[in-house]
Amino acid sequence: MTTQLITPTQSAYAYPLLIKHLLNTPLIYSPDQEIVYRDCFRYDYKTLGKRIKQLASMLKAQGVKPGDTIAVMDWDSHRYLECFFAVPMMGAVLHTVNIRLTSEQLIYTINHAEDDIILVNEEFLPLLESVKDRFETVKKVIVLSDKGAIPASSIEFSGEYEALVSDAVPEYTFPDFDENTMATTFYTTGTTGLPKGVFFSHRQIVLHTYGVMAGLTAYKSQANISSADVYMPMTPMFHVHAWGMPYLMTLLGAKQVYPGRYEPETLLKLIVGEQVTYSHCVPTIMNMLITSPSIKDVDLKGWKVIIGGSALSKGLCKEALGHGINLFTGYGMSETCPILTLSNLKPHMLEWGEDEQVEIRCKTGLPIPEVQLEVVDVEGNPVAHDGQTPGEVVTRTPWLTQGYVKSGEQSEELWKDGWLHTGDIGVIDQEGYLRITDRLKDVIKTGGEWISSLELEDIISQHEAVNEVAVVGITDEKWGERPMAMVVLKEEFQGKISEKDIQEFCMTFVEKGQIPKYGVPGKIVLDAVIPKTSVGKISKKDIRGTYGENLN
Amino acid sequence: MTTQLITPTQSAYAYPLLIKHLLNTPLIYSPDQEIVYRDCFRYDYKTLGKRIKQLASMLKAQGVKPGDTIAVMDWDSHRYLECFFAVPMMGAVLHTVNIRLTSEQLIYTINHAEDDIILVNEEFLPLLESVKDRFETVKKVIVLSDKGAIPASSIEFSGEYEALVSDAVPEYTFPDFDENTMATTFYTTGTTGLPKGVFFSHRQIVLHTYGVMAGLTAYKSQANISSADVYMPMTPMFHVHAWGMPYLMTLLGAKQVYPGRYEPETLLKLIVGEQVTYSHCVPTIMNMLITSPSIKDVDLKGWKVIIGGSALSKGLCKEALGHGINLFTGYGMSETCPILTLSNLKPHMLEWGEDEQVEIRCKTGLPIPEVQLEVVDVEGNPVAHDGQTPGEVVTRTPWLTQGYVKSGEQSEELWKDGWLHTGDIGVIDQEGYLRITDRLKDVIKTGGEWISSLELEDIISQHEAVNEVAVVGITDEKWGERPMAMVVLKEEFQGKISEKDIQEFCMTFVEKGQIPKYGVPGKIVLDAVIPKTSVGKISKKDIRGTYGENLN
Repeated sequence: MTTQLITPTQSAYAYPLLIKHLLNTPLIYSPDQEIVYRDCFRYDYKTLGKRIKQLASMLKAQGVKPGDTIAVMDWDSHRYLECFFAVPMMGAVLHTVNIRLTSEQLIYTINHAEDDIILVNEEFLPLLESVKDRFETVKKVIVLSDKGAIPASSIEFSGEYEALVSDAVPEYTFPDFDENTMATTFYTTGTTGLPKGVFFSHRQIVLHTYGVMAGLTAYKSQANISSADVYMPMTPMFHVHAWGMPYLMTLLGAKQVYPGRYEPETLLKLIVGEQVTYSHCVPTIMNMLITSPSIKDVDLKGWKVIIGGSALSKGLCKEALGHGINLFTGYGMSETCPILTLSNLKPHMLEWGEDEQVEIRCKTGLPIPEVQLEVVDVEGNPVAHDGQTPGEVVTRTPWLTQGYVKSGEQSEELWKDGWLHTGDIGVIDQEGYLRITDRLKDVIKTGGEWISSLELEDIISQHEAVNEVAVVGITDEKWGERPMAMVVLKEEFQGKISEKDIQEFCMTFVEKGQIPKYGVPGKIVLDAVIPKTSVGKISKKDIRGTYGENLN
Repeated sequence: MTTQLITPTQSAYAYPLLIKHLLNTPLIYSPDQEIVYRDCFRYDYKTLGKRIKQLASMLKAQGVKPGDTIAVMDWDSHRYLECFFAVPMMGAVLHTVNIRLTSEQLIYTINHAEDDIILVNEEFLPLLESVKDRFETVKKVIVLSDKGAIPASSIEFSGEYEALVSDAVPEYTFPDFDENTMATTFYTTGTTGLPKGVFFSHRQIVLHTYGVMAGLTAYKSQANISSADVYMPMTPMFHVHAWGMPYLMTLLGAKQVYPGRYEPETLLKLIVGEQVTYSHCVPTIMNMLITSPSIKDVDLKGWKVIIGGSALSKGLCKEALGHGINLFTGYGMSETCPILTLSNLKPHMLEWGEDEQVEIRCKTGLPIPEVQLEVVDVEGNPVAHDGQTPGEVVTRTPWLTQGYVKSGEQSEELWKDGWLHTGDIGVIDQEGYLRITDRLKDVIKTGGEWISSLELEDIISQHEAVNEVAVVGITDEKWGERPMAMVVLKEEFQGKISEKDIQEFCMTFVEKGQIPKYGVPGKIVLDAVIPKTSVGKISKKDIRGTYGENLN
């Protein structure tokens, strides 16, 4: 190849893709638009712009230099939003700490990421105090309090966030630097072993923001959002930057509502009071909301919600649509920044009836712009796009983690042949929609066949008595593995439904040819408490630990 | 600065921003959507994808290698769209030739760009034949014909485009390469001297596409387009890639209509027949359409049209709005890829009455995402955003030409202190809207003051009898310069309006304090033929040449 290169050699021409530039448009387009934090704070974009400068001034005064790592432990808040911008804009790295980690995991991630300063909400002080003696790199701790007071603690604080920010000089010139500068890092809690850190650059976050914008705003579908939407996250800001949506919604200059912790009453009150029109969450949170007693008193018509983290079951989708909620699927993972696909309806599908639309809304979706996505067999060859042939989902886009922090070996497992391997099993249909059928390690290998645990969950969720369900493969001498289901019944059905009722319901899908007979779970645990991971996903590892080893 | 860099060193992680990736989404999202060329061709996106591969195969068979330059001389067509993608996707450079150049300018640009192959529409053969003996680098010429036959010519052709493409193998693997690889080049026809070549990389075109997408789709305004729009360009594809819109509308998978040459009858027929909803053009073309007799028979309600190239006068804007056309302004130049601003109405302005909206629609607009734009005084300091204080418009974005082809000196004039200097004079108001008041060299310096020739044009265009107007400064012993206006009257007013009528009309604006008394043109030429440049802009250079030297 001897192409003609015009690489910008003089800095005069270079315009790196930096997070700071995402602020240009909203400060001109909607300086008076609101940012809301529960019932505690409310200010406009002009103030956001000013506070980002104040936060940077404050951090600099605390000794923060480019290349330092700043850890944040907070509920979803305006403070977190300020950190999303100010920390990377200074050239420092934002470490969003998973506040649901055990203390052992917490201190591991703090030391592994080499955090210099920790910003911690007073509610997490007991957790942080328990490990403070094991800090290896932390120099200072700043406390975050809704009340604005410094609480009693065995930790010596450098100050309280709100007071420090308010007092700081509102002038700060954010420098230009290489767009490949690391901007954020956070740790995924895998099913085994120690947490693994992923990391993203300014370029990656900026391009992810535009890719998601394209997928959500430009293609006619049920999913269209715009600057006129009112946004409230319901997946935490510590987890993959709340899917990067705070960056997108800030770029759009849209009204943003940060709810703190996710209590159904608070969420519903904010949705109604602040006229929220756009959110995203895992199925568990949506389920919690629509089974909350308060749901009867609120009007959720037109509320657009992207469901991710786990598959959206048809049962939950129909129930949410019944409340007027415009529910659809998004897909990605910590390693992918995260968004890869959205289950946008194509224009001709907007005319379809609800049942047909539910089929699409519950699919994993179409790749958004700049995402290349394939489903490949064990040799790495793409399989047919026939909606039938499964394979592993692999992807290329500009916003994939290059590996795990300080872990060459795990990176090699993630990246093969220039593609990131997701560890998900899926099929792509003729229309191009991906449907994840399972995790590579959750597939149930029974009678020489693969059965998808997610497909079984989807079927069982359609039973009128079922509130929540988890299916795993447990060891079986004859079959290798057999599916087992844990079911949470709806309150009004408790004690009225037997294991056999669920099995008979599954048999009707055997009769329709949708699953083989040996796909009907041999064991069904009713009125179970389904174990969850720290981010609210069903923990199949824990279920298998309790009920029998999966052989994979 | 010691930031943490995570530059992708292994090609496994690198995902360069390449034009080929713009095709991923439409081929999945809307493979059956149509591309239309006049009444000659009509095919779907699947076929577009196939033909782009066939075109690359064909060019490779003709000897094209990465780094070669392929010149195209064609009207707006599906062929041109295919070249927009296939040529840069191969790693070659697309030279879009201005077909309105003189033969001297033409051969200068062909030799200066070092074109290897020329693709020429048979209609431009007389022009090309006149210079073929002076080719320095051209090896082959391929002829483009709507009829599909090879015409008689003194040039020996390597074949006819349609036949060569149809016969070519529809398999081609477009390689990955550096995103800073040059993708396109074309020449601007300045007011003095030889044409100057500008050039853009894959990265620049891709980022421009997302920036324009953001500006047009994501912010609630009158301007919103989406994949559901039907697009037809009315600024030529040879001129700044038709503002980059063919790249954007292809990424959106939208229906596209290519009209060949711009004859009012053809354009109106296509708008109605193909249900065109979105276009862009210079004021001259819009004026030609709405003064065409056929306008009475067509319904143009809801047709969104961006006006660029020259200022949109309030007179033209009101007239177009009267026809139901949703008219607004876009701004940029050849050197800026081109789009920098769009006159999006902010949400609260959507409720305004027509007159107030016209004020905004005729402004130069708000910067689109990733564009930094300032108005600076002679020392390079930003002036107040008060809607009053003029300065030169300077900009930074990821999509600016680094200079002119093989011309270091001119590049230094373009770039100063890390900002591209547009040579335009403008003001920014409190809402952030830029309004270009003049070209630096067209400002009329009279009585110690600067008067904007564009402001005077805007005022005179509001007279009911005026169809078109151009104002220049001509030498005046007493005042230094005085404004002179050339006016084209509407047919029904011809012979009924005097120079004095126009001057009296201008005096009403003097009384309102909008212009000083010495701003009233001392000389007014009625029933003039206003000279235009090759891209349809008013040529003030030619006017000054005829009526007296401007002293700048």
